[in-house]
Amino acid sequence: MSLQNPTFIPGPTNLPEVLRKACDMPTIDHRSPLFGEILRPARTGVRAVLKSACAEVFVFPSTGTGGWETALTNTLQAGDTVLAARNGMFSHRWIDMCKRHGLRVDVVETPWGEGIPAARFEEILTVDTSHRIRAVLATHNETATGVRSDIAAVRRAMDAAGHPAMLFVDGVSSIGSMDFRFDDWGVDVAVAGSQKGFMLPAGLAILGVSPKAMMAAQGENLPRTYFDLRDMQRAYANDAYPYTPLVGLLNGLNLSCKMLLDEGLETVFARHARIADGVRAAVTEWDMPLCAASRTLQSDTVSAVRTPAGYDATQIVQRAATTYGVAFGTGLGELAGKVFRIGHLGSLTEVMMLSGLATVEMCMVDLGLNIRLGSGVAAAQEFYRYQPTTIAREVA
Amino acid sequence: MSLQNPTFIPGPTNLPEVLRKACDMPTIDHRSPLFGEILRPARTGVRAVLKSACAEVFVFPSTGTGGWETALTNTLQAGDTVLAARNGMFSHRWIDMCKRHGLRVDVVETPWGEGIPAARFEEILTVDTSHRIRAVLATHNETATGVRSDIAAVRRAMDAAGHPAMLFVDGVSSIGSMDFRFDDWGVDVAVAGSQKGFMLPAGLAILGVSPKAMMAAQGENLPRTYFDLRDMQRAYANDAYPYTPLVGLLNGLNLSCKMLLDEGLETVFARHARIADGVRAAVTEWDMPLCAASRTLQSDTVSAVRTPAGYDATQIVQRAATTYGVAFGTGLGELAGKVFRIGHLGSLTEVMMLSGLATVEMCMVDLGLNIRLGSGVAAAQEFYRYQPTTIAREVA
Amino acid sequence: MSLQNPTFIPGPTNLPEVLRKACDMPTIDHRSPLFGEILRPARTGVRAVLKSACAEVFVFPSTGTGGWETALTNTLQAGDTVLAARNGMFSHRWIDMCKRHGLRVDVVETPWGEGIPAARFEEILTVDTSHRIRAVLATHNETATGVRSDIAAVRRAMDAAGHPAMLFVDGVSSIGSMDFRFDDWGVDVAVAGSQKGFMLPAGLAILGVSPKAMMAAQGENLPRTYFDLRDMQRAYANDAYPYTPLVGLLNGLNLSCKMLLDEGLETVFARHARIADGVRAAVTEWDMPLCAASRTLQSDTVSAVRTPAGYDATQIVQRAATTYGVAFGTGLGELAGKVFRIGHLGSLTEVMMLSGLATVEMCMVDLGLNIRLGSGVAAAQEFYRYQPTTIAREVA
Amino acid sequence: MSLQNPTFIPGPTNLPEVLRKACDMPTIDHRSPLFGEILRPARTGVRAVLKSACAEVFVFPSTGTGGWETALTNTLQAGDTVLAARNGMFSHRWIDMCKRHGLRVDVVETPWGEGIPAARFEEILTVDTSHRIRAVLATHNETATGVRSDIAAVRRAMDAAGHPAMLFVDGVSSIGSMDFRFDDWGVDVAVAGSQKGFMLPAGLAILGVSPKAMMAAQGENLPRTYFDLRDMQRAYANDAYPYTPLVGLLNGLNLSCKMLLDEGLETVFARHARIADGVRAAVTEWDMPLCAASRTLQSDTVSAVRTPAGYDATQIVQRAATTYGVAFGTGLGELAGKVFRIGHLGSLTEVMMLSGLATVEMCMVDLGLNIRLGSGVAAAQEFYRYQPTTIAREVA
Repeated sequence: MSLQNPTFIPGPTNLPEVLRKACDMPTIDHRSPLFGEILRPARTGVRAVLKSACAEVFVFPSTGTGGWETALTNTLQAGDTVLAARNGMFSHRWIDMCKRHGLRVDVVETPWGEGIPAARFEEILTVDTSHRIRAVLATHNETATGVRSDIAAVRRAMDAAGHPAMLFVDGVSSIGSMDFRFDDWGVDVAVAGSQKGFMLPAGLAILGVSPKAMMAAQGENLPRTYFDLRDMQRAYANDAYPYTPLVGLLNGLNLSCKMLLDEGLETVFARHARIADGVRAAVTEWDMPLCAASRTLQSDTVSAVRTPAGYDATQIVQRAATTYGVAFGTGLGELAGKVFRIGHLGSLTEVMMLSGLATVEMCMVDLGLNIRLGSGVAAAQEFYRYQPTTIAREVA
Repeated sequence: MSLQNPTFIPGPTNLPEVLRKACDMPTIDHRSPLFGEILRPARTGVRAVLKSACAEVFVFPSTGTGGWETALTNTLQAGDTVLAARNGMFSHRWIDMCKRHGLRVDVVETPWGEGIPAARFEEILTVDTSHRIRAVLATHNETATGVRSDIAAVRRAMDAAGHPAMLFVDGVSSIGSMDFRFDDWGVDVAVAGSQKGFMLPAGLAILGVSPKAMMAAQGENLPRTYFDLRDMQRAYANDAYPYTPLVGLLNGLNLSCKMLLDEGLETVFARHARIADGVRAAVTEWDMPLCAASRTLQSDTVSAVRTPAGYDATQIVQRAATTYGVAFGTGLGELAGKVFRIGHLGSLTEVMMLSGLATVEMCMVDLGLNIRLGSGVAAAQEFYRYQPTTIAREVA
Repeated sequence: MSLQNPTFIPGPTNLPEVLRKACDMPTIDHRSPLFGEILRPARTGVRAVLKSACAEVFVFPSTGTGGWETALTNTLQAGDTVLAARNGMFSHRWIDMCKRHGLRVDVVETPWGEGIPAARFEEILTVDTSHRIRAVLATHNETATGVRSDIAAVRRAMDAAGHPAMLFVDGVSSIGSMDFRFDDWGVDVAVAGSQKGFMLPAGLAILGVSPKAMMAAQGENLPRTYFDLRDMQRAYANDAYPYTPLVGLLNGLNLSCKMLLDEGLETVFARHARIADGVRAAVTEWDMPLCAASRTLQSDTVSAVRTPAGYDATQIVQRAATTYGVAFGTGLGELAGKVFRIGHLGSLTEVMMLSGLATVEMCMVDLGLNIRLGSGVAAAQEFYRYQPTTIAREVA
Repeated sequence: MSLQNPTFIPGPTNLPEVLRKACDMPTIDHRSPLFGEILRPARTGVRAVLKSACAEVFVFPSTGTGGWETALTNTLQAGDTVLAARNGMFSHRWIDMCKRHGLRVDVVETPWGEGIPAARFEEILTVDTSHRIRAVLATHNETATGVRSDIAAVRRAMDAAGHPAMLFVDGVSSIGSMDFRFDDWGVDVAVAGSQKGFMLPAGLAILGVSPKAMMAAQGENLPRTYFDLRDMQRAYANDAYPYTPLVGLLNGLNLSCKMLLDEGLETVFARHARIADGVRAAVTEWDMPLCAASRTLQSDTVSAVRTPAGYDATQIVQRAATTYGVAFGTGLGELAGKVFRIGHLGSLTEVMMLSGLATVEMCMVDLGLNIRLGSGVAAAQEFYRYQPTTIAREVA
């Protein structure tokens, strides 16, 4: 694997120069006032990225998985019921986590490639007149399938059912890259990670928590210490952590939010959409279907490309890695061998993306697929011409 | 707070140049073979640092607190009983965590400044003929008091009582800096963190787990997902993580272990002892008692210095930070205001240590304490002369 | 200009991760033994890269231009005559420098796009029976035209004429990227720079000097101090510099040589040839001539592409920079506006190169040139398939 | 030599974190507009540091020695006469350079430890009614002796003599650390280097050139190409260089000037004076004389400490390096073995300085000198107490 080539995994993303430097800090005393000057704006910045005025932001030394565990253990008790759709590997894992913590899950099995079935959720919530369901779990962007679900629709379903459940959203591979509206959508807990839209190394579970969820978190609920929001909240009041924080990554998070907000969130989202459109133009030219069942479901951060039946898609990923030194994502779970995944989020330019597409083409031709070299690249080039939207230039 | 001066907090330590660079990696695919080339030797290296042939090593994106939670939740069930001494803030927190997870704790209240009372443990274990006690919790080095307990004595107590409880040891501020013998002492779970003896930024909870504890971890035990050893073990079999690993920090851990082992563990320990002896010579010259009640209890990684009665020790720490740009540790818990703490672990030279001692002297004189400038420095200089043991030279 | 995209200027090249880190050193005492551990292997490494057993290697804090000045001022006296061909901007500049230092230059005007006319040199040298000509100046690779001259042929011409002149070779954009044989070719002074084949930032003029040239350098010759080989030679005897050396860059040079030699020089050259062949395949597909008049003259480090008559080639470079954030080279001197230049040397992979070609295509189509998007990319892809030769993997 | 300890050589200085990062840039196209955004403010910043409104600033990829050569070769012709005092190694070297370039030097031999004899200069200039003397050479701060000369007095001497010679000042180890007034003192060429007051790695010769010297530089003068001000001036008009610039170091220079100007030059000078006063307090306590003959001559950037007669001062430097991993400067030229030098310029805090003094004390006692450990440290501590002036805090 060459360290020179960009990566096209759906996170961690390529790292902007300035964020690498921001993370690479010498040791400072995390109990000194300087730490507060890092922590406070980082938390404020995340809130703005979430488009929220009400969310309290928490950052744990952890990953998205730890973020999920934080959401569940702080707000629910053993035996509580949650509602979730299983439409990909990450929603599957979240459901599994619920069970391991003694929660009951009303699972709506959903084809992988489809989004969250909001109408079905509405039916279920409507009949749950006893409000047995304490929380609705929604994976905004299924990284395994490249499907973006309509969270606003989920909220509308909840409202239509007049149901008081909390809404927990996994935005790990969407927040900072695609539109996410914490307040408008009535989200109660949003979970993000440093290594996706924030363009940082992995290491931070980033959460937005609504006042309603904060209230719930004051209870005993599931056993927890490391991920306890109450301890963290108390420490934050003193610009501190209940244990040793990851100062460098927090410093990077602070700068990352500034970069996203300076560029403008809508510009960031448009940039992601534009790069994704180029990828989709290439995939269309290759005459391969995306896993996402319809245009509106197609994610702007990752594309899962279905290879012809009987063909092991994983070979493409392996050849790209071994022969060309470029990383893509394999299919996960029931999609293993059926799709390969192109990550196109975070710190990425059209120019970098073209090298990824060119690499995929070489692999596919090497492996005997009936693809014309340069064809997908040309489709993307045609799309990218005229108005490329590169990331706001880094300060030298 | 100047970024130019060394820090003297009891962790995170000053960062060696080469470790900062090792951690500052560009993004690589954590599912590529390259990752295994980082993970495998890092785990093997930790095992050697633990002086163990049997321990299975786990590294979680977390901190020491997460390491404790891993130890408890993977091996114990709600309602189980553990035995622990409370002789400082960190043992106190561990006890608190046990309770929050529904464990019962037989607490042996111990004066802060004393070590773990092995004899009392033996009595308790001897009468526990029903083996109600499932685990003994021991904090090897109490960072709050600067007290190193005798873990070998705890093991002897357990053996003398013929008790089958597991032995969990918090070695966060000892492992990699002071002698730690996982196998010899019959440790079942050892917990360390990246930011102390390993001289890395915070972000990794590092655990050694004995076969006996691994067996216990196969059970249901307390609810857990993020910290589940079973998931991690399965993933390690494929050189992978169950979620996104912290590749840069693991790369740093790999190199850190190499550095410690190349220097030689006994040399590393002797270096820490020597630097600590210089600090103790200065403190003696100042005529101030250490919190540690006797010489054998004095830690080689942190010294908690008692200031005269009626004097707020925290002022010294604040003045050092504000006026001289140097970080020391304040007293914690019941020692707040009564001690200030000098961290002397990890990447530190005698020369750096002397600047810390000189700073403390200036603060104390500034604040009206009856100290002669240069007196403690001279005592340390006298000690450090002739045979300074600097850290193995970094490769340029 | 995006800092995310690779650059395709003919130097400085893209920087390998490990070399950036090697250059980014903290201050060390350049009079300490540690410096010798950097300087000695760096000089030895350069000698091996030059394929020389006899060359004495000098490294000045300077650039290639300073390297030329070193060659001239140390070996020649005012009024001396040198022989040179002018076939591009860099040979032109060298001739100009000679004149400014009071040397006489027998200039053989040569079409830009042609190589050094060895046969003509032989004629001139043969009739110079009085050995008025003290040195022959040869630009191995004309960065302005993308022409590689045949230095072995120049040596044969000199030998055929039985002429004792010294042979000075500008290998700035060839050494470390294309075959260079100091000893076999009887080179007396070879000049290189850190920022080309050595893949480092600019800042070092690197010279190999033959025993014969060293002898000449003992004389008074042209006035010089900073670039005096005698001072440097004396200092090197003590592992030192006559002034403050660039320790970080020298540390990088040491590692760079190790990387080149570990990969194997022939492998390095083959890699450059292969990447260049892909570029040439694309250019051919675009139906545009290279400036280099024949296949054997085509450089493996830079290609100067002629655009259609009446078309300002500089526009392509400007559009690439402004619209796509990618840097290429413009035409220099009499080639200004007539060619654009693609640098393909140093730290570069096939995958990166494809993104450069894709960018050029977008620019050309944007600017109305009759090019089919993806056509050149496809030609290069076809070439790069099967056996890509990526740079030896960097140590993580 | 430990990379952990600060260095106390009189340059290169310790590097501030932010400047290291500013220098560690990825490759950018030095012909792109981005480069101008680095070069222009860097040049403007240097002018402000020189306290000049009229100076044209030039930055060569070179060192101070190259800066001297630039001053001489651009403004003088072979056979011209210059006036200079020899009062240390660096003034000696400058005189030597003049001779090597065919200049005549009226040398005023001056005891090492004394400053430039302005009165004697006035006498010489007064009798030079034919204005044979073209330039006066003055070393502002003799790094070898720790002597700061009075440049204003030299200017007054020139004015009193009514002499039109140019005034060239070597400010390599003074500019950016001690008061330097290009305009007020009527300096014609000032020479600085990146590795001293600018706190950067070596690699840049920095020059301020007066309009009068610029006029002189338009002539043929001594042969030069690399250091030709005319070429550089032409290139600067296009925000470019006549050859490949050191982009990273220039980026660092830009930030360095901002840091110095943001802190305030007078504050920077006061900080240096204060740290130097502490060193002098220690040296006085040790009862050792400084080489500088009087208080007003004592440099604020370097102190040359005379050891007792018959004692080899170099041993102290060697022991500090070998035993304690700390770098100091040895005596140069006729001071070899008679002094050791403590550099105290650039990025340095009182706290760091104390560790240097403590190290010297240990070495001296180790080597049998009659010094009390802690005595000099105490004298410096007493001085540093109450109002330490640390460098403006780096942005995290």
